[in-house]
Amino acid sequence: MSHIHELNGKKYVIEFLDDLYIQGWGLEEELYQGQSDFQKVDIVKTKYLGNMLLNDNLVMTSEKDEFCYHEMIAHVPLFTHPNPRKVLIIGGGDGGTAREVLRHKSVEKCVMVEIDPLVIEACREHLKITSCELDNERLELRVEDGIKYIAETNEVFDVVLIDSTDPIGPGAPLFGAEFYKNIKKHLSVQSIVVSQAENAWSHSENQKSLLSILSNDFKWVGLYNYSNITYPGGLWSFSWASDNLHPIKDFNSDKVKASELSFKYYNEGIHTASFQLPQFFYNQLQDFLKL
Amino acid sequence: MSHIHELNGKKYVIEFLDDLYIQGWGLEEELYQGQSDFQKVDIVKTKYLGNMLLNDNLVMTSEKDEFCYHEMIAHVPLFTHPNPRKVLIIGGGDGGTAREVLRHKSVEKCVMVEIDPLVIEACREHLKITSCELDNERLELRVEDGIKYIAETNEVFDVVLIDSTDPIGPGAPLFGAEFYKNIKKHLSVQSIVVSQAENAWSHSENQKSLLSILSNDFKWVGLYNYSNITYPGGLWSFSWASDNLHPIKDFNSDKVKASELSFKYYNEGIHTASFQLPQFFYNQLQDFLKL
Repeated sequence: MSHIHELNGKKYVIEFLDDLYIQGWGLEEELYQGQSDFQKVDIVKTKYLGNMLLNDNLVMTSEKDEFCYHEMIAHVPLFTHPNPRKVLIIGGGDGGTAREVLRHKSVEKCVMVEIDPLVIEACREHLKITSCELDNERLELRVEDGIKYIAETNEVFDVVLIDSTDPIGPGAPLFGAEFYKNIKKHLSVQSIVVSQAENAWSHSENQKSLLSILSNDFKWVGLYNYSNITYPGGLWSFSWASDNLHPIKDFNSDKVKASELSFKYYNEGIHTASFQLPQFFYNQLQDFLKL
Repeated sequence: MSHIHELNGKKYVIEFLDDLYIQGWGLEEELYQGQSDFQKVDIVKTKYLGNMLLNDNLVMTSEKDEFCYHEMIAHVPLFTHPNPRKVLIIGGGDGGTAREVLRHKSVEKCVMVEIDPLVIEACREHLKITSCELDNERLELRVEDGIKYIAETNEVFDVVLIDSTDPIGPGAPLFGAEFYKNIKKHLSVQSIVVSQAENAWSHSENQKSLLSILSNDFKWVGLYNYSNITYPGGLWSFSWASDNLHPIKDFNSDKVKASELSFKYYNEGIHTASFQLPQFFYNQLQDFLKL
């Protein structure tokens, strides 16, 4: 199936949630089309959100609002950890998460493991806003299976970020128990793990499953939220898990000021506010949270 | 233009933001079609969100997530006010805001002024989830122009809620200076005004204009946020304005517990968190906030 459709004589890039829901963006130009071993990879230029990456016809990120996701996956754990020096990113082929991680001066090394070379190639060419730090000398960019990497590496990390697609296709094993058991073996004494965790309206079963897996291995397990305009339905989540760092209790807002970094989404107030769940969302997940 | 379109051989209710962005919901059934003096009024049954109200092809509310908007417009100001007895709602024809206001036992009288009888009729018939309290004896339901009502009434209110559509069509004057000058004349000594205030991505000029108007008349002016799945792009706002009630400093979370009300979106944590603005949003509006 194509991701381009015509409506009222105009072309739109359209994403389908079965036959329940669609969203689409006026098309300016098709910039990249590829088929990797893992998925279909497209980049389109849209009138509203600029250049946009789609994997298997699902929108991954867009130029206009990519900062929401990338700042929130990175800065919440990195400002929770007192001194993050080694960071692992699994997935994140567009490069936006690595870009935000590398803004922290304490980070000596960031390993990023992306399975799909076509995603990296497409974003290097057409999403320079996210891929601009992929050649940073503090980044070790590995094009291989993150599941295999974490099972075999000898490295140890302070912060691990699972920057995955939805739990279908190549992203599915990144929502599994085996993967997190292996991650646990490669964490330093003080450490925190953050994962892309879908949304409360259409993926509550995925959220429960992920939190339940994390609960087996970690003392504290929770979610925090952000919103952008690319992902349908407003409120999207990241999960967090740690044995010894609590992102509210151990958060020192002075560190944010001292960093002298400027942000487009993240700030000290948003850090703390993002952990507050609307009541229906809390009710759905309360048995799966360890706070 | 119709709001029903066919894609891949299936019917969808589709909302257009010019030719920039669309969102649509798989159609089950068209339930109500009307044309009032003010706008086209439709109610459709969708597979994903249940029954949905559209005015002039723009989605107003849906059964699945109406609680997000209605709880947040009502409970934030009503739990800020120490003893809200008289409440005015301008607009709000679906009845959801009145339903939430009337859950507060302190409220002796709620006046609701909706300009369009067809919206009320359609919702009484097909959106019973929101219209269920329209015959409550503490509700004075007036079908007339809210602009005219506030210019002529002798009543005085503790809480005023502007539950308007977008600032086009019949909703436009509800974003104007004259309207708020008249509201100011009908406020009790301790009082707070809350208005539907669009979103930071596509309506920042409307937000600036509204805050600027409120700033002329009130000591404190700000915004708070919520998200649902019916409105595109995640983060939507309400404005608030007051001379003597501050919804963070004067908020007493014990009152929420003491009320013994149960909520689906609102809670004490969300109350406070909703005032935290993402940085780009704060940057856009900082000159217009009075906090």
